[in-house]
Amino acid sequence: MFENLYKSDIVIFGGHGDLSFRKLIPALYHLANDGYIDLNSRIILISRTKMNDDKNKALVKEKLKFFLNKDFCEEKYSKFENLINYCYINFTENDTFVNLKNILDNSLNEDRVFYLSTSSDFYGDICKLLTTHNLIKVSSRVVLEKPIGKDLKSSKLINNKVLEYFNEDKIYRIDHYLGKDTVQNLLALRFSNQMFVPLWDANNIDHIQITLSESVGVESRWEFYNEYGAMRDMVQNHLMQLVCLLAMERPYSLDANAVRDEKVKVLNSLRNIDEKDIANHTIRAQYTKGYIDGKEVSGYLEDGGNQSDTETFVSLKLFIDNFRWSNTPFYIRTGKRMANKNSEIVIQFKSVPHSIFDSYIMPNKLIISFSPDESITLNLMHKIPGLDEKMKLQEVNLELNPPRNVIRKNEAYERLLLDVIRANPTLFMRLDEVERAWKWTDNIINAWKNNMTPMQDYKAGSMGPSSIYAMMAKDGRNWHEC
Amino acid sequence: MFENLYKSDIVIFGGHGDLSFRKLIPALYHLANDGYIDLNSRIILISRTKMNDDKNKALVKEKLKFFLNKDFCEEKYSKFENLINYCYINFTENDTFVNLKNILDNSLNEDRVFYLSTSSDFYGDICKLLTTHNLIKVSSRVVLEKPIGKDLKSSKLINNKVLEYFNEDKIYRIDHYLGKDTVQNLLALRFSNQMFVPLWDANNIDHIQITLSESVGVESRWEFYNEYGAMRDMVQNHLMQLVCLLAMERPYSLDANAVRDEKVKVLNSLRNIDEKDIANHTIRAQYTKGYIDGKEVSGYLEDGGNQSDTETFVSLKLFIDNFRWSNTPFYIRTGKRMANKNSEIVIQFKSVPHSIFDSYIMPNKLIISFSPDESITLNLMHKIPGLDEKMKLQEVNLELNPPRNVIRKNEAYERLLLDVIRANPTLFMRLDEVERAWKWTDNIINAWKNNMTPMQDYKAGSMGPSSIYAMMAKDGRNWHEC
Repeated sequence: MFENLYKSDIVIFGGHGDLSFRKLIPALYHLANDGYIDLNSRIILISRTKMNDDKNKALVKEKLKFFLNKDFCEEKYSKFENLINYCYINFTENDTFVNLKNILDNSLNEDRVFYLSTSSDFYGDICKLLTTHNLIKVSSRVVLEKPIGKDLKSSKLINNKVLEYFNEDKIYRIDHYLGKDTVQNLLALRFSNQMFVPLWDANNIDHIQITLSESVGVESRWEFYNEYGAMRDMVQNHLMQLVCLLAMERPYSLDANAVRDEKVKVLNSLRNIDEKDIANHTIRAQYTKGYIDGKEVSGYLEDGGNQSDTETFVSLKLFIDNFRWSNTPFYIRTGKRMANKNSEIVIQFKSVPHSIFDSYIMPNKLIISFSPDESITLNLMHKIPGLDEKMKLQEVNLELNPPRNVIRKNEAYERLLLDVIRANPTLFMRLDEVERAWKWTDNIINAWKNNMTPMQDYKAGSMGPSSIYAMMAKDGRNWHEC
Repeated sequence: MFENLYKSDIVIFGGHGDLSFRKLIPALYHLANDGYIDLNSRIILISRTKMNDDKNKALVKEKLKFFLNKDFCEEKYSKFENLINYCYINFTENDTFVNLKNILDNSLNEDRVFYLSTSSDFYGDICKLLTTHNLIKVSSRVVLEKPIGKDLKSSKLINNKVLEYFNEDKIYRIDHYLGKDTVQNLLALRFSNQMFVPLWDANNIDHIQITLSESVGVESRWEFYNEYGAMRDMVQNHLMQLVCLLAMERPYSLDANAVRDEKVKVLNSLRNIDEKDIANHTIRAQYTKGYIDGKEVSGYLEDGGNQSDTETFVSLKLFIDNFRWSNTPFYIRTGKRMANKNSEIVIQFKSVPHSIFDSYIMPNKLIISFSPDESITLNLMHKIPGLDEKMKLQEVNLELNPPRNVIRKNEAYERLLLDVIRANPTLFMRLDEVERAWKWTDNIINAWKNNMTPMQDYKAGSMGPSSIYAMMAKDGRNWHEC
């Protein structure tokens, strides 16, 4: 069925972690069942909790059943289970890596992937000990989960450590947003539809909005989250990547470096938000108690039982200082415990300069949603049917009517894990992307630290503090209601 | 409910004709019931068949029941019937106009509309005798049904006659296509959607296609149709009007003359199809017997039982020689006994100049249909969901999702009759439009007469002769399949 059936040893550090059970193992389960990876591949789950193989398999099965839900199939699982191996390692303890060496040295597989799904504090140590035990081959790849550090300085430290043991082209820094079909589709939409080409610039676009809202709070991850906040957790990676894909120039090809070169150019063109702009162009806020789906939920400080100056919500107005985007604002907002889970990009075109109609004319909008549902909508003005003497207009929607694909929708991690296995780094972040994004967000975080703009609050279940509407209104614009 | 309730005496010459029963009286029935015209208005049906009032009303009721079908309502009709008057007139007989004079002189209505739904040969005589009997007031309007003549010369003769009795601004030359909501919507789409503005020219549009196909043949109208043919019956009016609306510059307002000035500019920019181009840019054909909806239907010559050099199908490739459209072809086709009834405009944008994708990229298309159903579709390229390493693309459709309007859809004649009654000439053709269109089509008809390009044939139930596909293929293009 497939030209290449990829055969690999996939070593997951943090193999019993939440991400592993929730996303990575389910993704591998699907890749194996759908015939993308050879059934002689091996998945080696590394954990700091000692257990035997049987217990490990029982745990994996239990978790898979839970997270795959109706996609779980006993028959398919029985084949998939053969791929699963367990290995006890304490990440900082040299001796324990012998366990992994024993497994890998006995392997028939040439290819090797190390997936580091641990705190990034361990990345350097793990790579070092893998090298000590001579487990990294020339072709081996390493996958680094975000967050890599918590600012440019710590990110540099960690990346430089990893770079002692892996070449840059073997390092796969993951941002799972890039694994989403709709996000990749931004490239298809922009560069295979000639009609968007003359429209995609400051002359024709009034502004762009990006909303990534979550209705969940931080829950059991309070301590972890409290060290990062929305800027580091969402803006520095996912939002910056979306801005890059929306704003980048046309790459000469879809090769990894051709695309990443263009993304870095966008990051380099981002206007720094300095002390002068910090109050007008940034909003940070924490959620207070409120209602979501009619259920009362607690506030961020109550959730943690502690004081905190960590933001759970960020809104920014940012500019890209280049020919294409000069003075076209990108408004972004993201947060926890908002009214709903929504990922949406709104490209709002300019208004007609002169109207020959009596009706109010709404500017055209292209709305790309990728959560909860994937959709593309184009808002147009249209005659209201009827006999009115003066033509009346209304806004109508052209909506995507995709060919019915009966196949299961792939999860972002399936795509990204498969790309690691087939050694295609296009959808992963290059060092300069990560660092340039940190540099830009550090600037804002540092200004906040100097209390240049106060922490605000917003009711759980709202779309953020009221100041986000004021920020828009001051520019004569408003948020598209998700 | 309405600010102005229009009260008028509406005099229909040809009141017992097919158009009157099929379209005009049903339109007036709806206008009266929907509260657009005052119930003290009067509808005076003029016929050359003598009958009494009761018989006339019985006939009207029978026809209304038939043509309105389930829209007919006994209760509503009983009110509407009070508006109906009958009047015997022989169009060329002076004395018979006294009958009309008696009706009109007794009227309480100041306003007066004369609707000439007869052969255009009678227009001059009717206007003359109306004047003789002093029935035309300063504010009276006259509606002229198409075809007005059969070429520029005869059209000038008729129009000049009518102009002896009515000022140009009181002459309403009807083209019922302009009464269609979707056709008026072309103005709304083009001039209230800023995103189309940079796209709407030769730089961005590869070509435009217009298809007006009918599945019906000429049936009982053979003798009449045979004098005109598709060029005079469809191209000179409906198709030229659609070309004007698609191609015109932005009018400074929607006032009648502002819009018509722009339409005339398009007609003046039409490149003449001369002897050199007649073979490559025009196709004329007659249908031969074939199958429509599985039923065998006869050919045009069999239908008439006669020889004929009248075309029942026309396809043209035309150019508008101005800044906006330089060398952008408009391909049009229209005919009888084609595969289906379809009115469709396809705006095909240019192809991407360079592709970074392996997939074949289809050019973007905006498709505006107004028959059998009204729809707007935008064809875009889109990523095929899935895990393919090289991004694969497919064409998807954005489709109009109009707000559900529960109201009944108005017929074109409702709109146009109401506009005559309220004295708004925007959707009617000015003399210079009609004459410029005749001049252009005469040129082609004359070249055909000189047998510059032979009559072809096409099977009933097809979309025209195969040469229409060759005409496109030679340009590297193809017809959008309706």
